[in-house]
Amino acid sequence: MIEFGRIDHVGQVVDDLDAAIVDYQRVFGMRVALREELPEQAVEAAMLEAGRCRVELVRPTDPEGPVARFLEARGPGMHHIAFAVPDVAVALRGVAAAGGELVDERPRVGLGGRLMAFVHPRSAHGVLIELIEDRG
Amino acid sequence: MIEFGRIDHVGQVVDDLDAAIVDYQRVFGMRVALREELPEQAVEAAMLEAGRCRVELVRPTDPEGPVARFLEARGPGMHHIAFAVPDVAVALRGVAAAGGELVDERPRVGLGGRLMAFVHPRSAHGVLIELIEDRG
Repeated sequence: MIEFGRIDHVGQVVDDLDAAIVDYQRVFGMRVALREELPEQAVEAAMLEAGRCRVELVRPTDPEGPVARFLEARGPGMHHIAFAVPDVAVALRGVAAAGGELVDERPRVGLGGRLMAFVHPRSAHGVLIELIEDRG
Repeated sequence: MIEFGRIDHVGQVVDDLDAAIVDYQRVFGMRVALREELPEQAVEAAMLEAGRCRVELVRPTDPEGPVARFLEARGPGMHHIAFAVPDVAVALRGVAAAGGELVDERPRVGLGGRLMAFVHPRSAHGVLIELIEDRG
């Protein structure tokens, strides 16, 4: 049994990160907690917060990357859900043992230096699920 | 400023609710907290839980309804994010005052009898945002 915490955040793909930040600030009163480029994932990302809600806005930086292809195929919108887990490696093994298909065989470093890994959408009826470490 | 709690749940559209429940139970160890038909929204919905993560699986029951059209256009996948708010009517007024475009001008009753309302995806770069009452 995998040990889950909360929904850490939801990830959205946008084509204009600055414009999206301005709109989320204006309409929902969210604030930017973190913004950085993640060259390994070919994106620039910003984590926005309001209360205990977190939304990660992601803009592709390489037209050949997977997020650029997602944006091209589906347009801006919801991209992934991140479930907080105390140990990403343990959770990955649990998902794989239960027959889940992994995108990442082992944890890697994502936004804010946190360990994370993706489970393939084929294992969740079309939904890309991120497992992200939260020891808190 | 709108007062937000946590991400209450994330909604996914599926074409086969029974199969999706079985897979989420098997791969992620989630359990069904609630399942009911919502004729007004032309869906059958199930709320699945693991830890403090909640996922609402939604299957269209009317081929002419908005969820059926979403499924037809985009296939199974992420549909909405629900932000918990202490008072949906107050939050709706806040979003509208900030220039957000509403789907629901006033709260209505959703899964489990809880008050909720949708904000239009045009206000959130392609993301359908639900505001859901959580007095807890």
